[in-house]
Amino acid sequence: MTRPDQPIRTDIGWSDASSITLFGKDFTSEILGHMNLGDMGFMELTGRPPNANESRMFNAMVVTLVEHGITPSAIVARMTYLGAPESLQGAVAAGLNGLGTVFVGSIEGAAKMLVEAMPAPDAQADFARLAAPVVQSFQSQGRIVPGIGHPFHKPIDPRTPRLFEIARETGFDGPYLQLMQAVSAEAARASGKLLPVNATGAIGALCCEMGFDWQICRGLGVMARAVGLIGHILEESRKPMSAEIWHSIEARATAHFRMAVPTDPAQP
Amino acid sequence: MTRPDQPIRTDIGWSDASSITLFGKDFTSEILGHMNLGDMGFMELTGRPPNANESRMFNAMVVTLVEHGITPSAIVARMTYLGAPESLQGAVAAGLNGLGTVFVGSIEGAAKMLVEAMPAPDAQADFARLAAPVVQSFQSQGRIVPGIGHPFHKPIDPRTPRLFEIARETGFDGPYLQLMQAVSAEAARASGKLLPVNATGAIGALCCEMGFDWQICRGLGVMARAVGLIGHILEESRKPMSAEIWHSIEARATAHFRMAVPTDPAQP
Amino acid sequence: MTRPDQPIRTDIGWSDASSITLFGKDFTSEILGHMNLGDMGFMELTGRPPNANESRMFNAMVVTLVEHGITPSAIVARMTYLGAPESLQGAVAAGLNGLGTVFVGSIEGAAKMLVEAMPAPDAQADFARLAAPVVQSFQSQGRIVPGIGHPFHKPIDPRTPRLFEIARETGFDGPYLQLMQAVSAEAARASGKLLPVNATGAIGALCCEMGFDWQICRGLGVMARAVGLIGHILEESRKPMSAEIWHSIEARATAHFRMAVPTDPAQP
Amino acid sequence: MTRPDQPIRTDIGWSDASSITLFGKDFTSEILGHMNLGDMGFMELTGRPPNANESRMFNAMVVTLVEHGITPSAIVARMTYLGAPESLQGAVAAGLNGLGTVFVGSIEGAAKMLVEAMPAPDAQADFARLAAPVVQSFQSQGRIVPGIGHPFHKPIDPRTPRLFEIARETGFDGPYLQLMQAVSAEAARASGKLLPVNATGAIGALCCEMGFDWQICRGLGVMARAVGLIGHILEESRKPMSAEIWHSIEARATAHFRMAVPTDPAQP
Repeated sequence: MTRPDQPIRTDIGWSDASSITLFGKDFTSEILGHMNLGDMGFMELTGRPPNANESRMFNAMVVTLVEHGITPSAIVARMTYLGAPESLQGAVAAGLNGLGTVFVGSIEGAAKMLVEAMPAPDAQADFARLAAPVVQSFQSQGRIVPGIGHPFHKPIDPRTPRLFEIARETGFDGPYLQLMQAVSAEAARASGKLLPVNATGAIGALCCEMGFDWQICRGLGVMARAVGLIGHILEESRKPMSAEIWHSIEARATAHFRMAVPTDPAQP
Repeated sequence: MTRPDQPIRTDIGWSDASSITLFGKDFTSEILGHMNLGDMGFMELTGRPPNANESRMFNAMVVTLVEHGITPSAIVARMTYLGAPESLQGAVAAGLNGLGTVFVGSIEGAAKMLVEAMPAPDAQADFARLAAPVVQSFQSQGRIVPGIGHPFHKPIDPRTPRLFEIARETGFDGPYLQLMQAVSAEAARASGKLLPVNATGAIGALCCEMGFDWQICRGLGVMARAVGLIGHILEESRKPMSAEIWHSIEARATAHFRMAVPTDPAQP
Repeated sequence: MTRPDQPIRTDIGWSDASSITLFGKDFTSEILGHMNLGDMGFMELTGRPPNANESRMFNAMVVTLVEHGITPSAIVARMTYLGAPESLQGAVAAGLNGLGTVFVGSIEGAAKMLVEAMPAPDAQADFARLAAPVVQSFQSQGRIVPGIGHPFHKPIDPRTPRLFEIARETGFDGPYLQLMQAVSAEAARASGKLLPVNATGAIGALCCEMGFDWQICRGLGVMARAVGLIGHILEESRKPMSAEIWHSIEARATAHFRMAVPTDPAQP
Repeated sequence: MTRPDQPIRTDIGWSDASSITLFGKDFTSEILGHMNLGDMGFMELTGRPPNANESRMFNAMVVTLVEHGITPSAIVARMTYLGAPESLQGAVAAGLNGLGTVFVGSIEGAAKMLVEAMPAPDAQADFARLAAPVVQSFQSQGRIVPGIGHPFHKPIDPRTPRLFEIARETGFDGPYLQLMQAVSAEAARASGKLLPVNATGAIGALCCEMGFDWQICRGLGVMARAVGLIGHILEESRKPMSAEIWHSIEARATAHFRMAVPTDPAQP
């Protein structure tokens, strides 16, 4: 009559009265004091601590995504804090909800494009030849090639050469980075525009180098931005801008109503 | 007739076509490749990069809060992913919403208690004498003293001695840590129970040592758990448990309805 | 060795292959087609369908809270939709996160104030005499009396007389409404300002008349605003304003950085 | 030097000191006391109040989606409330985050399917002939046809005949309902299984009858479930189940760790 339980299982961790085990490591002696916050992110994604090169590269990738100033997610967190200052977690949660296909999604778009285009790992790849049909496929569907160009950082996204430099220093300048650059070159050639690899394209390619599933790449942006939003809420608590945003936007968006109101000359 | 704009201002950062400035630092040359994700969290809270000791201590504090296994926030993230697998950010946001007064709030409770009890910084403090009225005040209001005891880790929370050790190594074993320990000792004396400082008490005291406002301490838990929830969503995508949680909880919670149904003897 | 399950139980509802039972009613024959969305809200709060007067009054209360134009929660939902248009539910969730102590919380503040001040139900109440210490208590603590005055609707909040009128028509103009009005009168007398009952004060008092716990009053605002935010997201999808909000706010908040940049006279 | 503002505009509503206008109606005299919560939802989607038939049909559609008992979203709201009982809005927000493609998304899936398959409105439609290629297209892509069949309600979803009955009574039993039924019949024929129209299929078809864009159909589920989640949070506050869910799930998911611990016979 009662429903039999089906087995469920986590391999992330557990604890008993005197110890905590995470991903097979003793938390207090092997993790705490030895790993930084980015390393924990790497371990959540791979099930093991990073080596020194992985730690440096992964931290650079997420650090790139922490803070982009007054973005929609920062405005959302600040406006939410205005109404619920007792719920800092709710303000961060609200801000993260916007990290969808349009912004952070371009990382996974780039990673997916590269994984699908990359031949078997031992094949001798001609990246220019691989890139051509990729670019053509996006263009024929009227879709933007992910990970290249930038509306604002011109001629190049200043983060990309630095990420590539760290990739060289840590040994992550592999085939996916080369393919990403080949896609950029091919898209520029086909369109006649300057379309260098941007930060999300570089990070998407680096996610592939690290072996992350493209479906989880958005997670790098989410964990990073949670860090950044705390700074925006702190600044908002000290130098608020959200009430002014509200009132000025409300006034601008309803100005046409105000103008439409018939003026009664008999009124004071 | 139009509403005049009031000034608003952020000092966090901005960018132009070729550069990005965060907290007065050039992002590509001074931050990227030099700072880890925890360091970014420290900079969001203080407006400046940490020195080596601050980096080690702060990373240890947030690393402690990343991953506590199958917690309510992990269950929430997994159950949300079940219904909206296309929205990883929504699953993390949902999980963070529960980091309120009950769980992560104890960090800010401890920090608030310590800041309010601490005399002027240059006063010669007798911590045992400071602790007595603090404990008495909580007890007379029937409130639990924050940051001490643990329902499960007995006799001690294994993270506390390790955090205190790192505090000694980095020079953060100051008056707030001493006061936190004095509160623990006094509470144990007054109640006759073993009430050692737990991880949230240690972190709350360390937040005070670092000069963070107690109101923002919850933010350490929020940024850390965002990292941990990515791991739970990744595991859920590979070894799902959320449908089984749903069906088994639904069956248990509605069993009384099923028993109440009149049995038709003509039915098999 | 295995942990024994403790009993859990819901009395809200369940279903079998051919029927659905909610709050003891057969869903298809007793609810669907007979109750409106507000009636469902009433049943969620009380466990039973409303009678005609309750239905009219409760719907008026929640209808009052659905739509307040370009509010912070509407801006949040729109800005979230900008980044994640695929996740309508995430945009609504983000918008709801700001319905905390500052905005919707004033309903529960008013309800709590009234419940705590009201004597035993059969006592002959002198509302003016009850109101005086309530107002004095708030004023002596430097706190604003909830539910009275309005920053914008002057001299009166136009919703209040209409809600009171419906309360009279439906028999909900009981002691809590009288006490709320007495508090308004006393606060006006003590401060010399015009402080009429506003919409949240009226709704808080009506929540008391209906017997709702003050802790759940915020829920009326949450369910109502979820309805309103759908309209904002729909308008945003057709006539977007969020990108313009982002860019104009970003420009205003970082103008001081731009002015600080040294101008190179050799540059064009 | 300063960025010129671009025009933004809302047509939803505005207010001045003495009046509130929503969708061109005076709120206090034309809406409050005249419309119920579901009617407000209809107005948010269409910009005008519903007539009597529209009111009855639309309320039936959203009422169907309010409460499905112990669902993932209800569990999420309850687990979130456990950690942040001070933030009712955060618990609802968390619960809504899971209303994505898997659950509520089937409404929009059905609506999209019907809109794309429906010929010009004045064409004489042979619904059986229209349905065949629709079903074939889903089957050839290995996708489930949305809006038909039910894992649990067998042989039919009891809500569907009632929704169809209300549709007949209100004049909404038009071509989209007929096409939805033809798709169901064709899918049953092609698969040999019983695949009657389920509640989300009926609601998706009714959304088309009402002229809603398929992209906004998920919004009906979101506004409805916000109402239902309030009831779950209220029940949780009185008869909590979330701590038991946490502890029992944690024990089940980590049982393999516990079994793996070597037993020390010297230990008590």
